[in-house]
Amino acid sequence: MTEISSLGEFGLIDRLTDKLEAVNESTKKSVGDDAAVLEYKDKEVLVTTDLLLENVHFDLTYVPLQHLGYKAAVVNFSDVYAMNGTPKQITVSLGISRRFTVEHIEALYAGIRRACEVYGVDIVGGDTCSSHQGLVISITCIGEGEKDRIVYRDGARDTDLICVSGDLGAAYMGLQLLEREKVASAGQKDFQPDFGGKEYIIERQLKPEARRDIVAALAREGIKPTAMMDVSDGLSSELIHICKQSHTGCRIYEDRIPIDYQTAIMAEELNMNLVTAALNGGEDYELLFTVPLADHERIKKIEGVKVIGYVTKEDLGCAMITRDGAEIPLRAQGWNPLKDEK
Amino acid sequence: MTEISSLGEFGLIDRLTDKLEAVNESTKKSVGDDAAVLEYKDKEVLVTTDLLLENVHFDLTYVPLQHLGYKAAVVNFSDVYAMNGTPKQITVSLGISRRFTVEHIEALYAGIRRACEVYGVDIVGGDTCSSHQGLVISITCIGEGEKDRIVYRDGARDTDLICVSGDLGAAYMGLQLLEREKVASAGQKDFQPDFGGKEYIIERQLKPEARRDIVAALAREGIKPTAMMDVSDGLSSELIHICKQSHTGCRIYEDRIPIDYQTAIMAEELNMNLVTAALNGGEDYELLFTVPLADHERIKKIEGVKVIGYVTKEDLGCAMITRDGAEIPLRAQGWNPLKDEK
Repeated sequence: MTEISSLGEFGLIDRLTDKLEAVNESTKKSVGDDAAVLEYKDKEVLVTTDLLLENVHFDLTYVPLQHLGYKAAVVNFSDVYAMNGTPKQITVSLGISRRFTVEHIEALYAGIRRACEVYGVDIVGGDTCSSHQGLVISITCIGEGEKDRIVYRDGARDTDLICVSGDLGAAYMGLQLLEREKVASAGQKDFQPDFGGKEYIIERQLKPEARRDIVAALAREGIKPTAMMDVSDGLSSELIHICKQSHTGCRIYEDRIPIDYQTAIMAEELNMNLVTAALNGGEDYELLFTVPLADHERIKKIEGVKVIGYVTKEDLGCAMITRDGAEIPLRAQGWNPLKDEK
Repeated sequence: MTEISSLGEFGLIDRLTDKLEAVNESTKKSVGDDAAVLEYKDKEVLVTTDLLLENVHFDLTYVPLQHLGYKAAVVNFSDVYAMNGTPKQITVSLGISRRFTVEHIEALYAGIRRACEVYGVDIVGGDTCSSHQGLVISITCIGEGEKDRIVYRDGARDTDLICVSGDLGAAYMGLQLLEREKVASAGQKDFQPDFGGKEYIIERQLKPEARRDIVAALAREGIKPTAMMDVSDGLSSELIHICKQSHTGCRIYEDRIPIDYQTAIMAEELNMNLVTAALNGGEDYELLFTVPLADHERIKKIEGVKVIGYVTKEDLGCAMITRDGAEIPLRAQGWNPLKDEK
């Protein structure tokens, strides 16, 4: 194990960014100057940023550092895909406390680099400093979009179809499982939890992927969504965002919400309401979007996308129609660390 | 005083970003979507980022929140000017612990907004979350530069003149003074330190400015520096960066280093070596740059810029020539929180 103080800031940065080679044409100058230089010409530049703090956004007792790095990068890529764009560069700032060694930070960085490799993104800069408390990760992602293809949150219109990719609630159930095992293993050394049959929900929590495949499929089918977001705070909360900004209402059907069977089994086991988990769980990083009714046939051709409801006029509000035909108003109970903090 | 939990994340963001109007043409879509949308067309995009942590980078016992916000923004602008560019947008991520109220964060944000107003920069996004420890501020700045006007660190050439703007060591001496008063006032309520005659060094520490005036003057005089950086870690450290990346050496003259008289008086009072403070103090945010010898007459026309030495061949190394003609090798003793941490 190598103490970080033995390398210093510049030594650590040199080590982390060793053999970092840019793959994107838009990356003109990467790490090593006051600022990175990018060239975007006829494309629009998309910028998004995320701040992750230890014990608020992640718990290192059950999150491996490499996975954490991967996820920290991917959640930013997801925001760029949610604009119908393509992530191209990130900057990575780290605040590191003394309990971390060089090897720890290398593992974290390996995860970030791996995500960049998979998604074709360049690391172009950042900042590294010591933290007196836990680990701090701040990532900013820069991406590109074609002017007439960028999708905002405010374009949903009455009668549009509401679509969602993949399935919902799995990441949240994965988190519940990890939390349960953490409590169960407290104080036991070398405790090996058995996640057999629950690999999917664990993976959804620890190593989410951004849905670039869906963005590609939409382009292939010639569909431009009228509004789009990624589901990070929960379906309910995101739907309300889209409707509020678009001045519309919506209706979604309980029985249309896509849920994986492992998510369902876990909810059963923990005696939790499955639909609540799927509506408010968060961290799914699926794409939620609306398309004109006329695109119905084309949407059906895209594997892994489900129509879950439709957009209405604003005065009808946002509601879910349950299996027995009742209407329940949607509420933004999303994952909100500022409000939920104890 | 308003508790942040009473507003929640979205409520707080709404309040902080209220009436935020973009002033730059390149800002197409600001806060409120998954990513900001910028349009840079024929300009290069410059990206830089900084992470500031409480009790590592700032001490709230003597730094007013509004000044902290101003400084956090300005140090990022400074990095963009150091590329010979112009800052245009920032994203602001905040990690906030429970001891802060809405009014505290509004004061911090007021400082950030004020800096943006002064420098013509738009706030286009960010992230706000709770922190279990202190205050975390992560700012990313995006700017523009003309392709053939951008200045890197690696272009210095043998015989180039080394220039620096303003004066050095003042911010460091301001910090020493604040630290001394903090110790002196420990436990005393309503202690009012007397900073009479030392306003300049206090201001240099608490409310630095970025040297856009120098960037403008260089353009006006038709000068394109061969290499440029801002002095954030100390003159010595920055000079070594430029020489290392440019494969050159350098000679600077002790008696040419610009130092304000308040800096000198404070060093005297604290029994500190004045030149060491000016070489290694850090946080000056002045511009350090090199120009071809042929630009000598033109450089002289720019007020507030001083020629402090010249670039040499690499094998001569980096050194300072003292008042009595001795050569002392420059060392990177710069401000390095990762190495200095106790």
